[in-house]
Parts: sequence; structure tokens; C-alpha cells
Amino acid sequence: MSPVQERPVLSAQATATGIDAATAAVRRVIESLLNAGSSAADLSGVAARLNAIADELAEQAPPVDERIADMWRGEGVTRHDPVTGPENAIAPPMPLRGMPDGSVEGRVSLHLPYQGPPGLVHGGVSALLLDHTLGVANFWAGATGRTGELTLRYHRPTPLFQELTVRGRQVAASGRKIWAEGEIRAADGEVCVSARGLFITPRPENQRFGGH
Amino acid sequence: MSPVQERPVLSAQATATGIDAATAAVRRVIESLLNAGSSAADLSGVAARLNAIADELAEQAPPVDERIADMWRGEGVTRHDPVTGPENAIAPPMPLRGMPDGSVEGRVSLHLPYQGPPGLVHGGVSALLLDHTLGVANFWAGATGRTGELTLRYHRPTPLFQELTVRGRQVAASGRKIWAEGEIRAADGEVCVSARGLFITPRPENQRFGGH
Repeated sequence: MSPVQERPVLSAQATATGIDAATAAVRRVIESLLNAGSSAADLSGVAARLNAIADELAEQAPPVDERIADMWRGEGVTRHDPVTGPENAIAPPMPLRGMPDGSVEGRVSLHLPYQGPPGLVHGGVSALLLDHTLGVANFWAGATGRTGELTLRYHRPTPLFQELTVRGRQVAASGRKIWAEGEIRAADGEVCVSARGLFITPRPENQRFGGH
Repeated sequence: MSPVQERPVLSAQATATGIDAATAAVRRVIESLLNAGSSAADLSGVAARLNAIADELAEQAPPVDERIADMWRGEGVTRHDPVTGPENAIAPPMPLRGMPDGSVEGRVSLHLPYQGPPGLVHGGVSALLLDHTLGVANFWAGATGRTGELTLRYHRPTPLFQELTVRGRQVAASGRKIWAEGEIRAADGEVCVSARGLFITPRPENQRFGGH
């Protein structure tokens, strides 16, 4: 796939209904629990209501082997990952766009579920966002692989509660080896975390987008 | 703090009531949504019920600045992080123990919310677990810091649905610089991912455990 003059969303786009709406609502519950804290009243009732929902959903679930096979069909490849997936409440989510220059870009504001030090993004969460972004950058550049080595440098603290810009780009490819770089910038444009990764293209019989 | 002959849990321990029970129930909802997929019936009703819970909790939440100040008091430091926190539904959670040899160890089985390639752990999730584990290893060794640089090497795919062992240990300290290493092993004992990190101790006026 070669870059075009548009900025297509490379990850799945969330809808306002069905599983995407339910997942968005779960994200609100995750954050509101952290915002409220243990001083909130009626929490045992909350647990019972949430467990009832989980029980109802569990009754509708196919065996996990069937589910894994099914969830990777079609657009599913980007519907459930823990960074961009509209069906995964772990994901902030951070949609990624393919840019005309061949890079990919995501914009995201992170709240308390992703906190490390007070008011700051957890360093491991930054690593998660960058690993995924570099993987999608490889897809956008036309040669994909799984992470072989990833080095993160933390230049300054990454703030919660403001729009971060996460970028990734493939910088070299040789045989089955691919190198990609990226960074997270705060709203003022300063680099908070940078990453450089070596990715290995699976042998053809194992080729599949999205793995890293 | 020096190692003792016990294996204390260094992260907060979950209780069966209140916010911990509610958070555990949210984790069940996250996973059951991914297990059921978009073929599940009644999902719009699920979203409405979840949004009602979020609305009720939001009414009980203090201003976020107050909340951040309060959540870092006492044991709070390990109650809400995205790896071990019993109040954070993003966290699997993975409790970490201090080992007699000075290392720290966590055991965790990861399911679909943490998936990268089919049936495998997302490489960025492995990075998140290791960054956090190395940070707690520094705490257990008595000299803590924030992540300055972290290098991850992916030796073989990390499987979902089996008990992983995540270990970390401080290997050197000089001035404000600390080096720590760790790895994730599959149930067969093979190393899936290894990590080496450089951590920087904040100047005394900023010293605080748990940040990275």
C-alpha cells in the first residue's frame, strides 16, 4: 500500500451502537470508578449489576477458540486491540491515520486509568502506544512484522489530560528486518517519549497484519 | 528496605468488597464483551445500563485535582496503577511479590483484552508489565527512579491463557542512575520477552515511590 493524499483512518472506526457503544460505556465506568475512589457509596450494588451484565454476556459467548478465529476476519484485525480497538475497553482508544508523508499519527488524551506518577502517563502505557503505532506505521509503509526489539527513551514526563500526538514511521527495511521510529509529543510540541523498533517479517506462511 | 525471608506482596491486595469488587466486575465485563463479540444480542441495553452506572459514579466524584492528591496517600500508591492496581480495571491485575534474593515476581494469565496477534500477548502489553515490574524491583532494592530508557527484546511469542511469570531485579546503581532487568517467561520456563531499563532517581524534593 502506498501513501495517498488523504489521511485514512487505518484503525477501525467506532460506531455509536452495539458492542462499540457498550465498550465506550465500559470505559466510562473504568474512569468513573477511579475518579470516585473508595469513598463512593453503593459500590457493592455496582459490583452486582456489573457481574449480572458479565454473566449475561458470558452466556452468549462462543468457545474462545472459535471466537479468536472469527474475530480476526475482515475488519476485526483492528477492532479489538488494546490501543485502537473500539471493542476493547482497555484501549483509550487512539485511532491512527495514515499521513501523506508515509507516517501514521494518532491523537489521544489520557486520563486516570493510564496514570503512572501523579498526573502523568505511566511509562509502560507510553511503550504500549508506541509499540502499536510503529507496527501500524509498518503496515502503512507496506512491510509489516512483529516486534523484535524496542527501545524507548523518556525525555520528559508525559502529561495526562491534554491531547498527545503519537507518530510513527518506517525508516528502513532490509530482507525480513524492518526499522521504525516514533514519538509522543505533548500539546506544546515537545517530545516526551521516543521509540525505535526492529520488526521481523514473519515467513510468508505466517504473514498477517496487526501482530506485534 | 532490605530483602527478608518472606515474600511480601509489594502491590496492594484486592479485597472482595467495595471498589475492588466493582473493579473486578468491570474486568469481567471487558473480557466478556470481547468473548461475545458483535454477534451478542441486547448490546444497546448493555450500554444504557453501563452508562447509568457511570453517571451515578460521576455524581460522587470529587474534582480531579482533589482526587489525584487523595489517591496518592497511604497505600493508594499501588491501588490504581494499570498493572497491579485493584481499583484499575485496565490492570489484569498482576500482584508483585518481593523475593528473598532481592528480585520481584508476578504471576499472571492474560486473556483477550491483552491480545496482539491471534492467541498471543500484545508486545506493548509485555512492555507495560515489564516497565512496571522493573520500577517495583527498584523499590524493593531500596533505590527508586523514573524510567529513562527501556529496551525490550522479544525472543518468542508470549502466549495468552497460561500462567506467565514476570520477574525484575535491580542490577546496578550509581549516583542517580539505576539499572534494572527482567523477563517474562511462559509456563514452560522459556523467556518470551526480556527488558533492561535505566532509571533516574528524582532529586530529593521530588522523590516519590511508584513513578515511572
